[in-house]
Amino acid sequence: MSGAAVSGLPNKAAILGAGVIGSGWLARLTDSGVDCTVYDPAPDAEAKIAPVLDNAERAAAALIDAPRPAKGSWSLVDSIAAAVVGADLIVEAVPERLDVKHAAYREIEAANADGIIASSTSGFRPSVLQEGMAHSGRLIVAHPFNPVYLLPLVEIVGGKATEPATVERAMALYTALGMKPLHLKVEIDAFVADRLMEALWREALWLVHDGVATTEEVDDAIRYGCGLRWAQMGTFQTFHIAGGERGMRHFMEQFGPALAWPWTKLMDVPEMTPDLVDRIADQSDAQAAGRSPRDLERIRDDNLVAILKALRGTGWGAGQVLAEHEERLRGAKPA
Amino acid sequence: MSGAAVSGLPNKAAILGAGVIGSGWLARLTDSGVDCTVYDPAPDAEAKIAPVLDNAERAAAALIDAPRPAKGSWSLVDSIAAAVVGADLIVEAVPERLDVKHAAYREIEAANADGIIASSTSGFRPSVLQEGMAHSGRLIVAHPFNPVYLLPLVEIVGGKATEPATVERAMALYTALGMKPLHLKVEIDAFVADRLMEALWREALWLVHDGVATTEEVDDAIRYGCGLRWAQMGTFQTFHIAGGERGMRHFMEQFGPALAWPWTKLMDVPEMTPDLVDRIADQSDAQAAGRSPRDLERIRDDNLVAILKALRGTGWGAGQVLAEHEERLRGAKPA
Repeated sequence: MSGAAVSGLPNKAAILGAGVIGSGWLARLTDSGVDCTVYDPAPDAEAKIAPVLDNAERAAAALIDAPRPAKGSWSLVDSIAAAVVGADLIVEAVPERLDVKHAAYREIEAANADGIIASSTSGFRPSVLQEGMAHSGRLIVAHPFNPVYLLPLVEIVGGKATEPATVERAMALYTALGMKPLHLKVEIDAFVADRLMEALWREALWLVHDGVATTEEVDDAIRYGCGLRWAQMGTFQTFHIAGGERGMRHFMEQFGPALAWPWTKLMDVPEMTPDLVDRIADQSDAQAAGRSPRDLERIRDDNLVAILKALRGTGWGAGQVLAEHEERLRGAKPA
Repeated sequence: MSGAAVSGLPNKAAILGAGVIGSGWLARLTDSGVDCTVYDPAPDAEAKIAPVLDNAERAAAALIDAPRPAKGSWSLVDSIAAAVVGADLIVEAVPERLDVKHAAYREIEAANADGIIASSTSGFRPSVLQEGMAHSGRLIVAHPFNPVYLLPLVEIVGGKATEPATVERAMALYTALGMKPLHLKVEIDAFVADRLMEALWREALWLVHDGVATTEEVDDAIRYGCGLRWAQMGTFQTFHIAGGERGMRHFMEQFGPALAWPWTKLMDVPEMTPDLVDRIADQSDAQAAGRSPRDLERIRDDNLVAILKALRGTGWGAGQVLAEHEERLRGAKPA
């Protein structure tokens, strides 16, 4: 009672690392009916996984307006080898240290010869990850975004050694999981989405560092303004519209020079002194107004479900991805 | 049949400049029942205004689930003096040149002694705008975001000479217009929201400049991922959640060092060569897939209406602002 209901899904997935990202992948995969084995050396792995699966089920039940397949099974195993045997998708979500990742790949290769190895890294280029592998053609980066069980974006990046067929298979696979795989043709550290987020994050840190705004004020400047735009159109399309009938060309003629104004402080990174860390942490706590991160996680998920459904109503962007996924689910034959 | 239905609204507003921002203000104000006079020296001012009012009416009809007041009247007049006579709110939305703004203030002051002067500038500090004014205590910056008739954010910034009562009155006024006034206590060029947007925009330009991604790929990296998060929580609260039970403090311990990695190219601004302008404009046109900026504007507005209504359903962020506005409208006495 698992897998293969929607074309393109793996038959069996292995997940290495059960942090928030690994657990999120587990939720997406089992919700699509894929059986999974999970390896994580932490003694509390099961305790880390359970609340993520709970939240994911709650969100999917509210979001998906189509018959959902029977959940895939999953189990915790006690080694990488035990996890990857027989898996046609191997999700690598181990800590962001190159030596840890390379060691994991050695263990994978000793036990599995042909599954796709998909790294969740948010920073390392796949060509760097591939160094020293025996069969590096099957490695890609598949970089997701938290919460993995709700946000559709996954950046797909191949390295120098990645076989084109691996990328092609990955694009079908993540689409079958209801995601929006974005294939980046050029490898750079941190890929595209995190660079954009980091640029904004640095500027946000400066604003707090310089005492211009609190964390709450920065967040309000985002969520009551540009954030509403960015949930449905990116920065280029937004400005394309702002340019009027002549679109982006007019916009750049009009506003291009402003970029040379000395407005941002992006050239430096603020030093994260204990004082600055305290200020940001204290302000973030105050902003939470007594809500625990767990409370906020539920609020976030409820909002994301509502936004995704709203965009399904307009048939745009992330809502279109959702509608297409539901179409696939409706058309899927019972396994 | 105008004004004063909701407490805090101006009795009469003057709008100087009928571009996309000035017209957006006109839409918000007349939709709240405020009578307006508009001055714009362009011969096609009326033609610029009409489609904005059409779009705004379409959006408000779909969005507002409460009795809306009778529309305020509006007329185009042929001088700043004629526009500002008797106005208790003067919206300055003239071109972003300091000499033009200072000249406008001189004309305002010759004809109006006590209305709030609210500059829509996206860059100039109010203290700089106030230089040379006779009664500078009544000037603030009230920086809105396009589309002004839908996005709730307005940054309120006082200058050295601004009287506290002016800021207090402005906070009530923009709240009465259904907006989220964000009072920034520290003046900096470009304020807060545009700095964040500009940081992301610069990085986006580099990604296209370096051929890493197309404009569409950059936009997709936003709207299928972080943009969905930012429509409801800002970057700090998002990372506060990512830090788990210990919140932001844990997040910074874990990810802080990554900020020192040489990932972004924010130190420079890409030179906007004709080739780069062409590339961005051509890619933006391709991305539009045959839709005119006018088509996209409608799509954007439909999406924003749907997202705002979705967040009204969860009672969060911009949706809460909307719900509170509707409560005010329900409680407002007919004029």
